[in-house]
Amino acid sequence: MKKIQLTLIQIDNYGPWTVTPVHRREADLQTLQAELFADLERLFSARGGLVFCTRFDNMIAISNGIDVDAHRAIQESIHNRYPITLSMSIGAAETPYEAQVLATQALQRVGSSRSVERRGALTGECVIPPDEDWVQIAHLDVDHTSSMTDSRPIYDTHMLLQKVHLLLMEALRDYEALVFYTGGDNFMVPSNGVGARELQAIIEDVQRKLKVELKAGVGSGATAELAARLANQGLKEIREGRTTERVVFKTG
Amino acid sequence: MKKIQLTLIQIDNYGPWTVTPVHRREADLQTLQAELFADLERLFSARGGLVFCTRFDNMIAISNGIDVDAHRAIQESIHNRYPITLSMSIGAAETPYEAQVLATQALQRVGSSRSVERRGALTGECVIPPDEDWVQIAHLDVDHTSSMTDSRPIYDTHMLLQKVHLLLMEALRDYEALVFYTGGDNFMVPSNGVGARELQAIIEDVQRKLKVELKAGVGSGATAELAARLANQGLKEIREGRTTERVVFKTG
Amino acid sequence: MKKIQLTLIQIDNYGPWTVTPVHRREADLQTLQAELFADLERLFSARGGLVFCTRFDNMIAISNGIDVDAHRAIQESIHNRYPITLSMSIGAAETPYEAQVLATQALQRVGSSRSVERRGALTGECVIPPDEDWVQIAHLDVDHTSSMTDSRPIYDTHMLLQKVHLLLMEALRDYEALVFYTGGDNFMVPSNGVGARELQAIIEDVQRKLKVELKAGVGSGATAELAARLANQGLKEIREGRTTERVVFKTG
Amino acid sequence: MKKIQLTLIQIDNYGPWTVTPVHRREADLQTLQAELFADLERLFSARGGLVFCTRFDNMIAISNGIDVDAHRAIQESIHNRYPITLSMSIGAAETPYEAQVLATQALQRVGSSRSVERRGALTGECVIPPDEDWVQIAHLDVDHTSSMTDSRPIYDTHMLLQKVHLLLMEALRDYEALVFYTGGDNFMVPSNGVGARELQAIIEDVQRKLKVELKAGVGSGATAELAARLANQGLKEIREGRTTERVVFKTG
Repeated sequence: MKKIQLTLIQIDNYGPWTVTPVHRREADLQTLQAELFADLERLFSARGGLVFCTRFDNMIAISNGIDVDAHRAIQESIHNRYPITLSMSIGAAETPYEAQVLATQALQRVGSSRSVERRGALTGECVIPPDEDWVQIAHLDVDHTSSMTDSRPIYDTHMLLQKVHLLLMEALRDYEALVFYTGGDNFMVPSNGVGARELQAIIEDVQRKLKVELKAGVGSGATAELAARLANQGLKEIREGRTTERVVFKTG
Repeated sequence: MKKIQLTLIQIDNYGPWTVTPVHRREADLQTLQAELFADLERLFSARGGLVFCTRFDNMIAISNGIDVDAHRAIQESIHNRYPITLSMSIGAAETPYEAQVLATQALQRVGSSRSVERRGALTGECVIPPDEDWVQIAHLDVDHTSSMTDSRPIYDTHMLLQKVHLLLMEALRDYEALVFYTGGDNFMVPSNGVGARELQAIIEDVQRKLKVELKAGVGSGATAELAARLANQGLKEIREGRTTERVVFKTG
Repeated sequence: MKKIQLTLIQIDNYGPWTVTPVHRREADLQTLQAELFADLERLFSARGGLVFCTRFDNMIAISNGIDVDAHRAIQESIHNRYPITLSMSIGAAETPYEAQVLATQALQRVGSSRSVERRGALTGECVIPPDEDWVQIAHLDVDHTSSMTDSRPIYDTHMLLQKVHLLLMEALRDYEALVFYTGGDNFMVPSNGVGARELQAIIEDVQRKLKVELKAGVGSGATAELAARLANQGLKEIREGRTTERVVFKTG
Repeated sequence: MKKIQLTLIQIDNYGPWTVTPVHRREADLQTLQAELFADLERLFSARGGLVFCTRFDNMIAISNGIDVDAHRAIQESIHNRYPITLSMSIGAAETPYEAQVLATQALQRVGSSRSVERRGALTGECVIPPDEDWVQIAHLDVDHTSSMTDSRPIYDTHMLLQKVHLLLMEALRDYEALVFYTGGDNFMVPSNGVGARELQAIIEDVQRKLKVELKAGVGSGATAELAARLANQGLKEIREGRTTERVVFKTG
């Protein structure tokens, strides 16, 4: 049975830390959060994974192919270089939504996000056997955002993209797919099990409601890295006019 | 006349760069974007400013007190260390929304975001005289998110926070205030001219619609750094139960 | 035949770049060099390797276990995020000195360090078969530097450590071992083939000439990571007084 | 009376931290040290200063124009983002050597580098009044290193540069100037009070002993940034053959 493996990464007891002894400088917190995300991205992607910044204090990684020892090595590297610790929880399931439910539940069982005792926990499902690894990622982007950027107030475009983000989240929730904003006009959608017809319908719905056109390259393979690369090849075909479809699937 | 000064920071011709010669590795782009934001945060905050990651390819900074030479030094430092260049445009106005409109228009006049000629432009309003610098920031956070984090699937909490984000953006748009998500359950709102009553009404509206409680510390002063610090003092008073208000103003 | 594999990492055409169009800001160059080293350290160490900062524009990595594809992935990640490119050359031999000779010669054959055509070259020996991987690292540190730091001018201690550095380089050159300063009072010495007696003699020679005492943990294994960890275990035994030896070997 | 102001930056109780509870991964320590240096370089240089990596656990910054509050802000930013704390001590004197003596003594008075009580101390001379700020920096580089790099084993060139480093340190010690290796074939020499004749003599001595030719641009001004920029202009004149001198002075 093919499964996607997700890792929930949670900074331990972060809220209280940010205000102890006084509220730490906002600019330092922003820098810390961005550096931590960039570091985790490097550490997971060196092993074929992909991390999404999500809430920054809680991040989600696609971690197929990354075993428990590698997770521990990643934690250790962060603990050696940051003033905070991270707990991680691994979940694997047929759909991304279910995988994050399992990862969340496992983490909740070992202690609260505000516990002072829970430091650097590593829990969750056993990682899956190699022949069950499967990741489908849809990479969606919005057409013509550069002309918006060149003609409208920048904040209006930013707000429009947040509307697209939320609409995609809501629509794809029904298919147990997750939506992550990756900057610019890009969304990455772990979407095992979602087909071309469903994606096409969601794209049309967004177009009807927000008057923006989306296209999607969808890649599948044993790791997040491979799936993301294939998704980009799909996008490229659409962009270069080599197909009339708005959704192109590629399998590794 | 008191004004907020905003700087629009735009990566030059970024979209085409990300796919030349082939689509660059997604993990590298995520790392690059996060590092670039973290670096700009350091460079602006060393001068009293504050940057929001916004779309990552387009960022907005509160830059009161930061003159044209300092902007040029920041650009130079980035150009010396990154494979991309940044254009910047400074806008100042009585409201944040109007300031970003001015900044956007000035940048649009010097060339497209996809121009290959526009590299490292610096444009916009003259920076404002020191006695006109004024920044009001509301720091909003959501109550009880840690118990959500400890009981619900992590993605559901993430989605709820995105709903709060969009609702705040829409509501504050009427008051010409901007809303930036700063991770966790936090929102920073440059909001010159918005009063306690308006913020209170917006908070109640969010509570009615999404069943989440918000509180707001609001700080004002000559720089973003000072305003953000005072906003946090306001939040602290509410958190510690030293007031029954949900919105507390502090002026530097 | 057991071999150490070294990778020479050279910034392409760096000298001219630093002064084009004018001499770039010194602080930016220092930041760039340190960030580049830190990134390479992360990228190699995620794969079991270890990088030394060496000259910063030329770095040396112990890369046993890291194949050609992984080298290419590391180059790509750097090229996507930095304004410069890197050429790399892999050399493997029974001694570290010979390995870096082979790596250097291979790189010299594909073009000059100041060539504008040579960009991102990857050359050198085929990487060695897994059963031939062997790394010996001696980790040397100086005793009582903290009391020097607490009693003498900081620059005098710095200068003394540079004298130790050069003396070790000269002495170990005869045994075809390399010496890298890793900060503080620490030296890492890739030293395949060097025995306890030789190290002991060198330590005594440094003590006679500079009046400082050194100790050495020496680790060996299939990767730099393992060898470095074992070397530290050796050091720990000496530090904790569990042996009267000044040189302790550990094999993985 | 014109003075150079130096800041000694010392990681608190670093040695014990690196081995608690076990010896931390060498690659993590190398990454941490390089990131910390890069961050301090950014923080000091945003304020006109310049940091040298020195021993990594002890760094020296030229800090003319940077007051006590700015030092405290730099410490705070590091403490908010790293697992270690830094103590700093400011010294000002007519010569760089004397300035670091004063800085060191002041730090030694407030506690040992291995004290568990001393965390984030800030001590030393009062910062000097603006009209007394004076920094002279000589930027030396070695001619023809690229042809060495292209013809000799890389480690031999590295070793030769370390010999140049030590010889310069020893020779300039007599003039109370400090020598810092800044990578490649470059040395930065805070050298208030050292004249062209002395530098010329030292360069000739190195040439006689090591058969390498050096040139020096020497800049002076109120800040390290200005002095370093002027030094580079001097170097440029020599490189471009606009003078027959090997040492060129520039004053801001």
